[in-house]
Amino acid sequence: MPLPVSFVSSGPGDPELLTVKAVKRLQAADVVLYDDLSAGAILELARPEADLISVGKRAGRTSPRQDHVSRLLVDHARTGAKVVRLKSGDSGIFGRLEEEITALSAAGLRYEIIPGVTAPSAAAAAFGIPLTRRLTARRVQFVTGHDVTGTLPEGLNWAALADPQAVTAVYMARATFPDFAAKLLAAGLPPQTPALLASGVSTAAESFIPGTLASLSILCRDQPRDPAPGLILYGALTAR
Amino acid sequence: MPLPVSFVSSGPGDPELLTVKAVKRLQAADVVLYDDLSAGAILELARPEADLISVGKRAGRTSPRQDHVSRLLVDHARTGAKVVRLKSGDSGIFGRLEEEITALSAAGLRYEIIPGVTAPSAAAAAFGIPLTRRLTARRVQFVTGHDVTGTLPEGLNWAALADPQAVTAVYMARATFPDFAAKLLAAGLPPQTPALLASGVSTAAESFIPGTLASLSILCRDQPRDPAPGLILYGALTAR
Repeated sequence: MPLPVSFVSSGPGDPELLTVKAVKRLQAADVVLYDDLSAGAILELARPEADLISVGKRAGRTSPRQDHVSRLLVDHARTGAKVVRLKSGDSGIFGRLEEEITALSAAGLRYEIIPGVTAPSAAAAAFGIPLTRRLTARRVQFVTGHDVTGTLPEGLNWAALADPQAVTAVYMARATFPDFAAKLLAAGLPPQTPALLASGVSTAAESFIPGTLASLSILCRDQPRDPAPGLILYGALTAR
Repeated sequence: MPLPVSFVSSGPGDPELLTVKAVKRLQAADVVLYDDLSAGAILELARPEADLISVGKRAGRTSPRQDHVSRLLVDHARTGAKVVRLKSGDSGIFGRLEEEITALSAAGLRYEIIPGVTAPSAAAAAFGIPLTRRLTARRVQFVTGHDVTGTLPEGLNWAALADPQAVTAVYMARATFPDFAAKLLAAGLPPQTPALLASGVSTAAESFIPGTLASLSILCRDQPRDPAPGLILYGALTAR
């Protein structure tokens, strides 16, 4: 028995990296609410009659307010339509899922969450390396470099993030990475720590720039928004 | 042009939580090397003629040596067969991928990695909560509670793991969680920190036990291996 709202994780971008279940939900949807980051070829999986509604979140652009997105979601679910809320990567990680779940619960509406492939898993796989290593990378951690205001989030745990025995993935990393890297250096992580900038993973625009904390910090300073928000991996990375 | 070896991530257990690409690779495989943790209904996606080879890794059991698995992989790839190496969850996270990649590279064989849904993403989704929260859970981290020897890994960063503003997922958590939790308490994390034990996520055996660090530590002490290795989430979890 399908629930009125399915949060569907769209993965990194390639429609073949959606789960089978995610494809089924998209194909059955009456209404699809999507962010620009999760759009493109994936939306072609929906039926031609489905109502596709952009809620317009995009790095570095003004976006509809979160409460507007939540209201749209509740309004469409109340019509009895099968609503898919499409979110890039895994919807439970930096997807602002809690706000929308809370709005649905307050309206007495039920939902399901279809998990998906995260950006760090997809980036590492496409580059041909694992995210963990048996003896030297025993912890993997994900943070975002980009708060809703577009700046570095307050209150990050820099000691945890400056651990050379972890692999760290920074979402939406480009614009704030010079500041981010400076905090890591101040917390003791060496400037020559291996790092990898990944953009457009699994799409035609896929690119990788391997380097170090220091070199990617300079690159992001000089090209803060080009061509994409970017994901940066750093730490105990496996050499390729 | 397919590569001779595909590392295929099988996700948490439900065949519908494989990616479309993972299903295609399984359906095209001549040989599938699988761990017991990634078996079951997923193997039914392979062709009846495919050669299915268990390499037998299972929590708490004696397993073939890693170098034996790597040698099997190389030997099969050298025959020209399309080889799928199936790994549970996302193959890049606690999947011992590096050892097998190194063996292939040393033999001059090429490979691809198909990413998949991680156990923590699947567990949180099935329980109906996100893994991150905008203001209070800005970092998500994954560790394993279980080294190859079956004991707590040496050298974990307890300060990073005892951060109340992170959500932490502990893979293979049950057997060592009493020790794990004791280290967290010693590092200052309160015993009443929310925690969730998830087993058999997305399968018929799926179960969730919500509690706290203290309560799940007692439960795991009393039932260390029953019914499954288990995943534990703790920290700044969203209430359901």
